[in-house]
Amino acid sequence: MDYRKGSIGRLFVARIDHSEDLLAELSGLASKENIRSAFFVMLGAVGSARLVIGPKEKSVPPEIVWSTFNDAREIIGVGNIFWENGAPKIHLHGAAGNSKGIVMGCIRKEAEAFMVVEVFIVEVDIQAERVFDEKIGFSPVRFPG
Amino acid sequence: MDYRKGSIGRLFVARIDHSEDLLAELSGLASKENIRSAFFVMLGAVGSARLVIGPKEKSVPPEIVWSTFNDAREIIGVGNIFWENGAPKIHLHGAAGNSKGIVMGCIRKEAEAFMVVEVFIVEVDIQAERVFDEKIGFSPVRFPG
Amino acid sequence: MDYRKGSIGRLFVARIDHSEDLLAELSGLASKENIRSAFFVMLGAVGSARLVIGPKEKSVPPEIVWSTFNDAREIIGVGNIFWENGAPKIHLHGAAGNSKGIVMGCIRKEAEAFMVVEVFIVEVDIQAERVFDEKIGFSPVRFPG
Repeated sequence: MDYRKGSIGRLFVARIDHSEDLLAELSGLASKENIRSAFFVMLGAVGSARLVIGPKEKSVPPEIVWSTFNDAREIIGVGNIFWENGAPKIHLHGAAGNSKGIVMGCIRKEAEAFMVVEVFIVEVDIQAERVFDEKIGFSPVRFPG
Repeated sequence: MDYRKGSIGRLFVARIDHSEDLLAELSGLASKENIRSAFFVMLGAVGSARLVIGPKEKSVPPEIVWSTFNDAREIIGVGNIFWENGAPKIHLHGAAGNSKGIVMGCIRKEAEAFMVVEVFIVEVDIQAERVFDEKIGFSPVRFPG
Repeated sequence: MDYRKGSIGRLFVARIDHSEDLLAELSGLASKENIRSAFFVMLGAVGSARLVIGPKEKSVPPEIVWSTFNDAREIIGVGNIFWENGAPKIHLHGAAGNSKGIVMGCIRKEAEAFMVVEVFIVEVDIQAERVFDEKIGFSPVRFPG
């Protein structure tokens, strides 16, 4: 484990509207407001998304399994905002369901708000960034200094 | 997307006890303490609930699908508190499961704590309210001014 | 319902690394940093865990049902840190899934990070502790004074 402690920065309440892309909106907000380190929670509905629903086997680096949905679903999400190579990177895990079932995982592409998604973002004054690690095929959060 | 930024207000740690109604308790707390804008997370168990598990089809306004459970389930929830027409409105999404399966959605009625539910509420100094929108059959968060 | 209000303390951003035990790491952090009252959210992946997925029947005290997984899964978690008998107690509810399905409940043992788990901890200045209640077989949060 590695960790840092800090104190609170700004808070943001955001409403993402129908057909807007969750990841693009959050990334754009992070750029515009220069949000460098933050966690968020979200609730609402999504019309579609591409997500990674886990590794195929328990091996490192993992062979990841993609899933896609294109029907409207209720969602809860937990995520964070850190930067990688000079741009914000949204890390978002969510569970999304409707009467046909539930899917959960790492929401990475084409996540479209259905009706509305409400997001609560908590900025922290902790310096951190994502650095790509070739061995694991992923960019963990690193704390410089 | 619309959003506002602000800073932190009060924090609340609440324990909702066996057989108490989650929504009534949170709504009562919001009234008593005049919590106008807040997000919360919760964990615990629920004995029953009526929830919307998504739209039937991907159309606006959606025809919503209700689900009910009356067996005790573990829960995680994410929600917020804003006011509509002079009264607090609790928006709560949760995933609730036991050995028979998992259901998730927007918990709207008769959500009864089983044993205990623990809630962490973060108040923000951002002015926002819910305003009913006839076209979508829902009350999105609006930011006045 | 019982509750207390307070204000914010320190924030922690933690990265739990591959094969580390989530509960031991969080408990160790709470001891080292003397975190007495806090809530947290987490996202990442877990390689294994033992969790309680709910009561068998809707009766108090409940007969709890255990579940175990040992394949890597995506996770979202919500939890808190309070102390019981002079030691930190981690209460963690999570939903964990992969292409084989989703399980959710109270994660209590052998929860091993797969690749990485990211945790955001919010400390509050509210005095609270867990006190064991024989009648329900659980230790609810109590607010002294």
